[in-house]
Amino acid sequence: MPVTDKDPLKKKLHTIIFEAETPAGKAFDVILLLLIVASVVVVSLESVVAFRRDYLLIFQILEWTFTILFTIEFMLRLYSSSRPLNYIFSFFGIIDFLAIIPTYLSLFVVGSQYLLVIRVFRLLRIARVFRLTRFVNEGHVLSKALRASLTKITVFLGVVVMMVIVVGALMYVVEGRASGYTSIPKGIYWAIVTITTVGFGDITPVTPLGQFLASCLMITGYGIIAVPTGIVSVELANAERLSTSTRVCPNCHTEGHAAKANFCDNCGFELHKIDELV
Amino acid sequence: MPVTDKDPLKKKLHTIIFEAETPAGKAFDVILLLLIVASVVVVSLESVVAFRRDYLLIFQILEWTFTILFTIEFMLRLYSSSRPLNYIFSFFGIIDFLAIIPTYLSLFVVGSQYLLVIRVFRLLRIARVFRLTRFVNEGHVLSKALRASLTKITVFLGVVVMMVIVVGALMYVVEGRASGYTSIPKGIYWAIVTITTVGFGDITPVTPLGQFLASCLMITGYGIIAVPTGIVSVELANAERLSTSTRVCPNCHTEGHAAKANFCDNCGFELHKIDELV
Amino acid sequence: MPVTDKDPLKKKLHTIIFEAETPAGKAFDVILLLLIVASVVVVSLESVVAFRRDYLLIFQILEWTFTILFTIEFMLRLYSSSRPLNYIFSFFGIIDFLAIIPTYLSLFVVGSQYLLVIRVFRLLRIARVFRLTRFVNEGHVLSKALRASLTKITVFLGVVVMMVIVVGALMYVVEGRASGYTSIPKGIYWAIVTITTVGFGDITPVTPLGQFLASCLMITGYGIIAVPTGIVSVELANAERLSTSTRVCPNCHTEGHAAKANFCDNCGFELHKIDELV
Amino acid sequence: MPVTDKDPLKKKLHTIIFEAETPAGKAFDVILLLLIVASVVVVSLESVVAFRRDYLLIFQILEWTFTILFTIEFMLRLYSSSRPLNYIFSFFGIIDFLAIIPTYLSLFVVGSQYLLVIRVFRLLRIARVFRLTRFVNEGHVLSKALRASLTKITVFLGVVVMMVIVVGALMYVVEGRASGYTSIPKGIYWAIVTITTVGFGDITPVTPLGQFLASCLMITGYGIIAVPTGIVSVELANAERLSTSTRVCPNCHTEGHAAKANFCDNCGFELHKIDELV
Repeated sequence: MPVTDKDPLKKKLHTIIFEAETPAGKAFDVILLLLIVASVVVVSLESVVAFRRDYLLIFQILEWTFTILFTIEFMLRLYSSSRPLNYIFSFFGIIDFLAIIPTYLSLFVVGSQYLLVIRVFRLLRIARVFRLTRFVNEGHVLSKALRASLTKITVFLGVVVMMVIVVGALMYVVEGRASGYTSIPKGIYWAIVTITTVGFGDITPVTPLGQFLASCLMITGYGIIAVPTGIVSVELANAERLSTSTRVCPNCHTEGHAAKANFCDNCGFELHKIDELV
Repeated sequence: MPVTDKDPLKKKLHTIIFEAETPAGKAFDVILLLLIVASVVVVSLESVVAFRRDYLLIFQILEWTFTILFTIEFMLRLYSSSRPLNYIFSFFGIIDFLAIIPTYLSLFVVGSQYLLVIRVFRLLRIARVFRLTRFVNEGHVLSKALRASLTKITVFLGVVVMMVIVVGALMYVVEGRASGYTSIPKGIYWAIVTITTVGFGDITPVTPLGQFLASCLMITGYGIIAVPTGIVSVELANAERLSTSTRVCPNCHTEGHAAKANFCDNCGFELHKIDELV
Repeated sequence: MPVTDKDPLKKKLHTIIFEAETPAGKAFDVILLLLIVASVVVVSLESVVAFRRDYLLIFQILEWTFTILFTIEFMLRLYSSSRPLNYIFSFFGIIDFLAIIPTYLSLFVVGSQYLLVIRVFRLLRIARVFRLTRFVNEGHVLSKALRASLTKITVFLGVVVMMVIVVGALMYVVEGRASGYTSIPKGIYWAIVTITTVGFGDITPVTPLGQFLASCLMITGYGIIAVPTGIVSVELANAERLSTSTRVCPNCHTEGHAAKANFCDNCGFELHKIDELV
Repeated sequence: MPVTDKDPLKKKLHTIIFEAETPAGKAFDVILLLLIVASVVVVSLESVVAFRRDYLLIFQILEWTFTILFTIEFMLRLYSSSRPLNYIFSFFGIIDFLAIIPTYLSLFVVGSQYLLVIRVFRLLRIARVFRLTRFVNEGHVLSKALRASLTKITVFLGVVVMMVIVVGALMYVVEGRASGYTSIPKGIYWAIVTITTVGFGDITPVTPLGQFLASCLMITGYGIIAVPTGIVSVELANAERLSTSTRVCPNCHTEGHAAKANFCDNCGFELHKIDELV
């Protein structure tokens, strides 16, 4: 996000708030991270009855302090950003915004302040502060593999959702209201609890036929839980392989040529030999 | 399914109902999908006591409307198909048929209308409508890998079923009726709940010996849950590799070119385009 | 198991009982399989209170009939086998023996007849009868991979068992008797239920510290459940690869040479080129 | 840990205590292992109410005997070690120390003796005693793969923890105190129980919206449980490959010879023996 602006204050603010290269920028980020953690801890403790009874005022003062600080920070980010709209609609812009809303909302809707725990997602910036480039890279490999798996996993989950709807309705018909399957949506909820192997046990089949159907569902779930794992494994292996073979064709600039390749497989341009240490 | 018939109405119907190339065909499919989703939602809501009490009549009118529409559609499919028998005994033919039966059955057997949620499987056609070829392709890779895994997974599940029968009987003898293991089938049900790591907790061992046996079963289950995953991973990797690696350079005969490659990465020879839909 | 004996009756019995090549041998095996399934079903039904009350006599007659038939079969196997001791101490010999004991034992110990469900393991012979060589082969690949994984999985399970003992004792100290953690063995049982993600819920932490510890254990279990899966996947891929490369050195007879190998990597003998169709 | 000291008693003690090459050293280790197992069994049994009531004195005598023996052993280790500080701050030094503390602590804090089950970790030395080099090697491959996976799994678990905090707070707001979600930390505990597919069922959603959110969380958990597995599989495959593939033929320079290979499988050149303990 290059600052094309010439306003020196704006530029300085941008360096402090958006970057972590200067001591001031780093200090800002560290303080911010501590504030985020503190605010999440405070709201979590506030939700405990025993604590709220005794320290409600302290909690509320802290919450409003945090929220006002984050609001000022959000406005400074907006002000110092060279393209405020880009910032607002970026992933972190949305998170930053959502992270200050709940406290203001709590004036109108009691309890909504608890939603400010969404602030934890702001911690994703942590990697940048501590220059955890290794973690960032690994994160990239991971999210690349997950993106590559997305189509397959969507197909898979689509089929699972259909199965779960049919089984849920079947169990509703077989077990009926007496066993806790009070409606088809409840049956679907139970089927999801079962096929994902969570198994709360709040609703369980009691008739022999229901238990037989449940057994079939569990065995099936056991067999197909392998599918997403297999998908991610394969894609992760692919992403890993590609990330170690960053050979770029000097002609057409496509990436990911195999280490053994002599020619670009996109344009046919001859590739230079690379050193063996791939 | 080529239409060899000369009847223009039949041909036109076939284009609209079975294909999604023309505007009319696409519109038909989109309306159909919406009707399917609506009918599943309606029957799910009908199963909720509070809703049924208040809106039973509306639900029944909607249900019968949907069913009559689907019946007409089914008959038109039969009529416009050049080989009706092929259609009836195809996967979608059977689903389409099963999807209209429950409502008629509900005249004789109360509650059977809930089984019409099998209609969700008709949504599998969705891919064709929106030309989601990428999803269809990924689905093919997935089902190919699953078919290749089938023999191994059958062997595995066979052994698991034997194990579960023996452990179920053992727990019945060890824990007995007092702990909820009222019969061997019940013990088998418990063993399946346990080895698949679902763990409802509706039946649990209470004697020290029973808990020790359960611990062994769980540790075993933990060790062997890896097996289907490993099977699918390996087969998926194979299926993926095959779907890309069968391209051979006509010049230097090296194999394993990526599906997207235009040139051989070994000798730079231009490769022929391969047909989509591997 | 070649029959060196000259007794024609013995030889004929051997062909019928141990082999499935002749019509008589095949018929014998099919009848045997049906009897095994029937006897397991009968004893399972007998364990259901409602059935036992009404049909106890029928069940007992059937059970004794099956047991006597299996006893005769076991004796014929012993008689017709050329090396009876080899048979008795083979896997199937032990299973066959254990499968007839419980009924006789039930004369002295009530309820022990339920243990005869071990007969299901006799069904493992099913593959031979129906010449399911593909299943047998896949079973070999699977068991090869599992054997190859055994050392790693033993190391892994050893560490898991130690962890589970320490966590079990910790939870016993932290939660105490009031929450159901009545002893260290009970705590260990709970830790196994938790780390394997079964989660019955018969014992659950109620104190904040206990729930925090449980959370750590679950997150750990979630992270390490990957380990056996990874192990099996890798070994399965190895076993698959080896099973397709059955090149044997003509000099030292070691197996599993890579398809591209020119020389035996055990003795250095030059290998013949194999046809490309690996 | 070479002994540069000249004190013969110290040297002899070192050989007996730290090594397992001599008969005396081996005997020492075997006795030590038996004592460790015995002391863990004793403290486990002591925790069972019925046993403690009847045999408390015996248990206490045994416990103090074991502890005094282990204390003497710890002091001898300190004395005979050439660099005592290195030993104390090594993995085993810390375990050895922690393993004797709880009994002494139990004089002041009732119940702390149960923590001495940490002694089981001393059993990790077992591999050395029985020269289970194969197990040690496999353990190295495993821990190498786990270390290589660590960055990725940390990134993954970090994201999971954030998700779990947000979902926990959401469920607290949606379900509220009546359903058992008495605070945000409790909600987070529930979210961990759910996303790891443990599913105790001590707290479960009862409102339709809560059950819908729980279903989403479970489906998500089902999809992402694949991630650590995929990570470990890939790293394990890498670790396996590296542990075998780094042998280069000095004649033709091909790589990837199996660890057991005596000859290059490309040119037949004799390979040098590689040291065990890859």
